Order: sequence, then structure tokens, then C-alpha cells
Amino acid sequence: MEHNLEIRVSYADTDQMNVVYYANYFVWFERGRIEYLRALGLSYKEMEKQNLILPVMEASCFYKAPAHFDDLVLVKTKIKELGNSSINFIYEVLNKETSQLLATGETRHPFINRERKIVRIPDDIRTKLATSD
Amino acid sequence: MEHNLEIRVSYADTDQMNVVYYANYFVWFERGRIEYLRALGLSYKEMEKQNLILPVMEASCFYKAPAHFDDLVLVKTKIKELGNSSINFIYEVLNKETSQLLATGETRHPFINRERKIVRIPDDIRTKLATSD
Amino acid sequence: MEHNLEIRVSYADTDQMNVVYYANYFVWFERGRIEYLRALGLSYKEMEKQNLILPVMEASCFYKAPAHFDDLVLVKTKIKELGNSSINFIYEVLNKETSQLLATGETRHPFINRERKIVRIPDDIRTKLATSD
Amino acid sequence: MEHNLEIRVSYADTDQMNVVYYANYFVWFERGRIEYLRALGLSYKEMEKQNLILPVMEASCFYKAPAHFDDLVLVKTKIKELGNSSINFIYEVLNKETSQLLATGETRHPFINRERKIVRIPDDIRTKLATSD
Repeated sequence: MEHNLEIRVSYADTDQMNVVYYANYFVWFERGRIEYLRALGLSYKEMEKQNLILPVMEASCFYKAPAHFDDLVLVKTKIKELGNSSINFIYEVLNKETSQLLATGETRHPFINRERKIVRIPDDIRTKLATSD
Repeated sequence: MEHNLEIRVSYADTDQMNVVYYANYFVWFERGRIEYLRALGLSYKEMEKQNLILPVMEASCFYKAPAHFDDLVLVKTKIKELGNSSINFIYEVLNKETSQLLATGETRHPFINRERKIVRIPDDIRTKLATSD
Repeated sequence: MEHNLEIRVSYADTDQMNVVYYANYFVWFERGRIEYLRALGLSYKEMEKQNLILPVMEASCFYKAPAHFDDLVLVKTKIKELGNSSINFIYEVLNKETSQLLATGETRHPFINRERKIVRIPDDIRTKLATSD
Repeated sequence: MEHNLEIRVSYADTDQMNVVYYANYFVWFERGRIEYLRALGLSYKEMEKQNLILPVMEASCFYKAPAHFDDLVLVKTKIKELGNSSINFIYEVLNKETSQLLATGETRHPFINRERKIVRIPDDIRTKLATSD
């Protein structure tokens, strides 16, 4: 499964190079994976209430072409790997109008609880994540 | 009392108008008031641990002249008014090199606890805040 | 006329008080006014290309109730006042599900050109803005 | 050479997990490399005026331990590799008080001009960058 999130580039996203500031792609990745989970029937907000937290352990982004103010971009999110107690997401950011690939990225997350102990992914959540293949 | 915080404008602060994006001044105000409190011997981090929280109730900013990438700006913070359970801070942002006034602002804060109930300012904190006059 | 923009609160928007950080409302206001202009047939991106820039001269926000992670909020934008070479927008932020008013705000903008000179609002743009009453 | 930049974690940096939001480390990396260049006698602002721009081509971060509100962190910046027309920076973020390593990261930058053409690093700049070994 792949989830597409449409985002309109705001003025706040830009910097004086007239392009989207590089750190903001990671905010888009976050929005992408939250919506991806929602599309699988998983609310990250509910997961946190159930003491299941997904911090970011690694994050990377390759910048291919700049995004500009007022562009509509698509953030495509996919699961790359599902471990016993971790998950990897990969992302593509495209210009929606031209389909040009702007960036690719990846984030890796352990499943932990509030005491910051690693926990196995609960079965009901694993089932939903696995259907995404 | 007045507290001066020096901030170097980063690329992240700018937008495609080649100036600091307007919302970022409010981040500077936050940094200004945290350092102001520290200069009075008050750690906002400790206050929160003691269940004393200062959310923002009102915030305003007047923009006089733009700040640019790599500028050194000074954020001058003062207490304007100290109520029984509220506080108002006022701010001036200046270009450090030219002393030009870039912006003025104000924020108003109730003192609340984690249950979001308004609380009177504890005496030890009031004493420190009052010395700032 | 009034324009409604729906925004999903992201993790990036929150702070350790578990609510949306106060400066981020100003980013929402920006997104609200850009979409408001678009709804009137005005592209702010095109306006900038025609050397018509709307920086922020004043901005204020009153915070009534907090927004939380994953909330859907509505940003309602209206023109409050249209001068010869300036415009005031007012905003309301509501929780979409509960209709609770979370914040109100205002921004004031001169129309300037790249040389930072104030310019009269061109007739074609004024006509579109005026239809919004 | 290694450059140490001290940063005080602000409320704006945090998220509702009570830690610094992951994308903000990339803002710290930017501030680290700008100050690193300054320590070598290179003003990035001046480089841009001379039509020499360093966008980010790749960025990555490994998160080891969280940073919290009001922490003092050190951003240690080094050059990892200097090409004919590219440069790689590596970063370490430490808690200043405890010396605990919080994160490591890397960014890769081509040297381009405003027309987005890759350019060789000018000799005077290369000389300064090379002294950093």
C-alpha cells in the first residue's frame, strides 16, 4: 500500500533561497506517516494513549529538485520494513502538477512505551500494518 | 529590569521575501521571556515541575523593519504588568549592529496548573518578579 | 465572504504542554489568507511576480482554548478593512468537530513593491477584494 | 578543526513527547555549519552575495537520546569531505552538562550558482576550508 498526502507549500515553508527549507521535508514525512497509519485504520493519537510511542531513530532525505511557494506537493508514504518492534517508512515527495520527483526519504522508528522501553508490536496493530504489503 | 538576549538569524528563520518570517518573532519572544525569568533567578522548567504553567493568552507584534539572514538581533524583554495571577511581557527586537528597532511585541500569560485552573502567583516567585521593577 | 481552511494538527505543531505552540497559529493565519485570496481568484504567487508584496505590519492572536495533536481545525479568514494601500485580515480558529472557538486573530498588511515602497492597490485586484464584502 | 555551537533548547523546539522534535536537529545542523564557516573566516552571507550557494543535497540524522526543554546542547561540526564542487559536514549533538551524545548527523552540499549550475570551489574559499583539516 502507498498513501498520498497532498500538501500546499506555505510561505512559512520557504527560505531566502526561494525554495522549501530542507528541514521542513521531515515535517512532511511526519504528516505522511500519520496519514498512512490512519488509512490503515490506525490512529497514532490512540496508539500513544495506549502507551505505544514511535519516536524517530534515524531520518534521511535526498533532495532532487526544489519545491517552491504555492506548489502542490504529494507525499507518498510506504512501509519499507516491519520488524518485531520497529518500523521503517520510506517517502517520495513529488510536484503534483508536473509529477517531478523532488525528494526521497526514510525514517526508522522503534516501538517504545512511556518508560522508553522497547515493546513488541501488538498483534492487532501488526495485522493492520501487514495488510499494507 | 530589562533583559537582552542576542540571537543570530538563521537560514531557517527566513522566507522567500528574504526577511525573517513574521511568526518567528514570537519564538524569539518566548526565548526572551525564558531568559528574562532566568536572570531573575527563576527557571521556567522548575516552575513547570512545581505545577505552575504560563501559557500564552494574547500575543501581538508590530513589525517596523525586517531582520535578515545572519543579522545579530537583540530581544529586549520587560515585565509590563504583574497581576495576582497573570503577567504581561513586552519586547523590543533590535538590530544589534545598527540599533535599529525592528519590532515591538507583547504577550499576556495567566498562571495556571496542569488542570488548567488559574492559580495565584506564589509569594517566592512574586518577590523575584517584583524586584524586576 | 469568509473562507474556511481545514488543517490537521501535526506533531510538529505541538509543544511539551501537549498543545499547539502559540507561534504556529500565525502560520495558520498565513495559510488562511493565501487560500482566501485564491478563493477570490487572486494568486498571491502571481501578485509577487507582478511586484506586489504584502508583508505583515501587525499581527495579534487571542488564545481561547488549546488545539491538540491530530485535531482538525478550521481557519476562518475574512477581510476586516480594505484601505488604499493596505488590508486587514481577521481570523477565527475552531475545532472542526466540536465547533469550539480556539483562537481569534488579526493581521495588517501594506501593499508594497520590491523596493519596499507603498503602492496603491491596483484596480483589478481591488475589484476582486471588494467583492468579498 | 571542529566547531562547537551552544544552543539553549526552547519551548518551540519541543513536541508533546516532551523532547525536541526530530526535524529541529536539522535546523541546529544549519546553525552549526554557518558558525563553522564563520570560524574559518567564511561568511555564508558573503558567499551568497558572490553567487555561491550551498543547498542541501542529502541530510541524515541518528537519534541516540532525547534533548529536553531548557537543555544546553553543543552542536559539534566538522568537514568530512571536500570535493571539487561539493562539501560534506558531519555533526554531533551533545548535552553540554552531561556530555551525553544525543545525535549524529551529516549533510552533503554541492556548490552552485543562482542559475543552479554546479561550480568549482573558488581557490580562496578552498584554502580556508582546507585549513580545517
